[in-house]
Amino acid sequence: MDPGVELLGRSDLEALQLERLRRTVRRAARSPFYGARARQYGIDGERIKSLEDIRKLPFTTKQDLRDAYPYGFLCVERQHLVRLHISSGTTGQATAVFYTQRDIDRWADLMARCLYMTGARPGDTFQNLSGYGLFTGGLGFHYGAERLGLLTIPAGAGNSKRQIQLMRDFATTVIHIIPSFALRLMDVMTEMGVDPRRDLQLKIACMGAEPYSEEVRCRVEAFFGVEVYNSYGLSEMNGPGVAFECPARNGLHIWEDAYLVEIVDPATLEPVPDGMLGELVLTTLDREGMPLLRYRTKDLTRILPGDCPCGRVHRRLDRIQGRSDDMFIIKGVNIFPVQVEQVLMSIPEVGSNYRIVLDRENNIDTMTVQVEVTDRIFVEDMRHLQRIQNKITRELKSELLVTPRVELVEPQSLPRNDGKAVRLVDHRNPYNT
Amino acid sequence: MDPGVELLGRSDLEALQLERLRRTVRRAARSPFYGARARQYGIDGERIKSLEDIRKLPFTTKQDLRDAYPYGFLCVERQHLVRLHISSGTTGQATAVFYTQRDIDRWADLMARCLYMTGARPGDTFQNLSGYGLFTGGLGFHYGAERLGLLTIPAGAGNSKRQIQLMRDFATTVIHIIPSFALRLMDVMTEMGVDPRRDLQLKIACMGAEPYSEEVRCRVEAFFGVEVYNSYGLSEMNGPGVAFECPARNGLHIWEDAYLVEIVDPATLEPVPDGMLGELVLTTLDREGMPLLRYRTKDLTRILPGDCPCGRVHRRLDRIQGRSDDMFIIKGVNIFPVQVEQVLMSIPEVGSNYRIVLDRENNIDTMTVQVEVTDRIFVEDMRHLQRIQNKITRELKSELLVTPRVELVEPQSLPRNDGKAVRLVDHRNPYNT
Repeated sequence: MDPGVELLGRSDLEALQLERLRRTVRRAARSPFYGARARQYGIDGERIKSLEDIRKLPFTTKQDLRDAYPYGFLCVERQHLVRLHISSGTTGQATAVFYTQRDIDRWADLMARCLYMTGARPGDTFQNLSGYGLFTGGLGFHYGAERLGLLTIPAGAGNSKRQIQLMRDFATTVIHIIPSFALRLMDVMTEMGVDPRRDLQLKIACMGAEPYSEEVRCRVEAFFGVEVYNSYGLSEMNGPGVAFECPARNGLHIWEDAYLVEIVDPATLEPVPDGMLGELVLTTLDREGMPLLRYRTKDLTRILPGDCPCGRVHRRLDRIQGRSDDMFIIKGVNIFPVQVEQVLMSIPEVGSNYRIVLDRENNIDTMTVQVEVTDRIFVEDMRHLQRIQNKITRELKSELLVTPRVELVEPQSLPRNDGKAVRLVDHRNPYNT
Repeated sequence: MDPGVELLGRSDLEALQLERLRRTVRRAARSPFYGARARQYGIDGERIKSLEDIRKLPFTTKQDLRDAYPYGFLCVERQHLVRLHISSGTTGQATAVFYTQRDIDRWADLMARCLYMTGARPGDTFQNLSGYGLFTGGLGFHYGAERLGLLTIPAGAGNSKRQIQLMRDFATTVIHIIPSFALRLMDVMTEMGVDPRRDLQLKIACMGAEPYSEEVRCRVEAFFGVEVYNSYGLSEMNGPGVAFECPARNGLHIWEDAYLVEIVDPATLEPVPDGMLGELVLTTLDREGMPLLRYRTKDLTRILPGDCPCGRVHRRLDRIQGRSDDMFIIKGVNIFPVQVEQVLMSIPEVGSNYRIVLDRENNIDTMTVQVEVTDRIFVEDMRHLQRIQNKITRELKSELLVTPRVELVEPQSLPRNDGKAVRLVDHRNPYNT
């Protein structure tokens, strides 16, 4: 732990933030993109007298990053860069994030701080079940774990049986895993007759990269016998290590010495009060190669009011409630896939996978929720299946205010991969048919 | 460059080696495996008076690593370890290699030294087209490139089209790639109409992990417009960075400050003179977590006699001629797949892929060489194809002293993957049929 930063008083933290914000605004103006903006809006570091003055600056969007691809946000000469990550951009043009050696070091420090906070210590074995390469989740956790002095196994994604073998052979205590792969591993372990509570030494699981519900956390904790720590980050802000849970596991401390946080109404872009849901907007406070000012993350969350029993003043974000991009509208109602997941995972007969399929029949939108049931249930009689189906329909309707069609399917019949789960299939786009 | 080590005089280098060897022998005895050996053979660092005294020590084999899995070679407490790599062991039980932070740092230094030697400098963009995770090729080059200050793109293996896009968008100048993926990329670029000499900025390609012939080097150099540098390493010796070519590109300088090199006759295990082919045996001289003494690599090579024009005293290994494991015997003749490759790649009508299939018919061994021809050739008349077939058969017979059956097949019809190429299929094992 770095008490000098983590346990700063609020006013000292804010003084540090203001100093770093002014430096960041000055530095950002060296990039072609912010340089042009600075001339256009007449804004420089000198005009930032308080943290609130950040509102004088315009937002930066994913589209700005795309338009300025590849070098438009760069503040240093190319020979000072040591790393490049690409977000492949499911929705089109890629975006690039560049790092100097100092940026890599600070990022590793933040990740080490996160892992330390969960209780991981030298002597622990850390198995990183995350894709390496361009995806920041792999190298981000890897560098942080080595920085903290954990015995780091760069296991990578997939290959469930080898993962289990590694956990056994090296008495793995800490893992980093995406939620859909954790659910998949549960199935494989069950098939193989491996009981993690009996056969493995796991105690801490860091989960992130996909939004997941409290119910998924409970299932993973119960099966693996671990404490699950929620992890948040995005490649535009380095990658993982932006916000992380402490042992209170009631919200994610966002590292305010490195990121200035705002929550805004996604429609009006005005700040919302603590406790209100809105879009997370972040400004880097300690990045050299590619600072970003007021970056709209599209992630929906809220600031949790009140102090944390752990003593850290860094404010807590609620778990991500979805992305404005993920939200779909059906019959005029805004729905986030995570709402569906919350309902499903609270029903014991539901297995580990589901899928939402949107369609248009006779110009009317339909929503079908395909749900895998557990092995135990599937062999039982039709009347029982019907009862479960009705129960799911009823509970989804009560949460969503829309009545979906519910289909029960065999265990492990829905498409799945070891990468990110596809939870939503939208056939309504006329160009798709 | 580190002239203090790279340009040492021979006697100074040997003095450094002796000091490090004695330290290594003492340190190794802390491990269960070498501790037992030290008691058995009465050997400790004090008895090593000269470099030749290493011959008093018994060899260490892959089987020893397997038998002592997972912790039998460990010389430090687990809490001092930060990394673990596994070689998955195509032939059975995995082996584990452990690293302290100091080991990771020294490894990165060696890799940076290799990359510097090729001419790579800060300002270059380095695209690492190598699998990350447990495979040491990915993280090994990655750490070395960052250490040297190259802009490092952790592209990972596969995904040819994205690789080409990255090369274009970020003006990649240096790549690390395995030979079979380089050949695959040539096909994809040709399909896409990309001419690297016209459209890309590549100048240096580091190739290793699979043995390849001088003819493959020539093809890759001609197509991509690069200089190819041969890279050698193995996970038991950290990974890549054991030996590497300098701009003379006539043999690979083995870093003798970090590795003590012996070449032995694989049958008698006696040293062979410089210039003679034998099995490479390596001793780590600067490793803390898991030193290895006289490790039999199974790789066949020779010390190239004479001085290198580059001025480095570190001796040069010839390119790997194959592994004793890869060697197959047919009709009493020992053959290495690389010999077949050398012949094929010198014939212009031969495409980029081939496969050797061994079979047993009526208790007689048969060897079939399946050869992809180039697009240009395949559409031509049968007589021409027949002439090529005869030419290949003739030249293979002259090199191997065995007459194989040669089958010409369509371009890109042989199975291939973005990982390591499978060059040999042996159906003769009675348990396979």
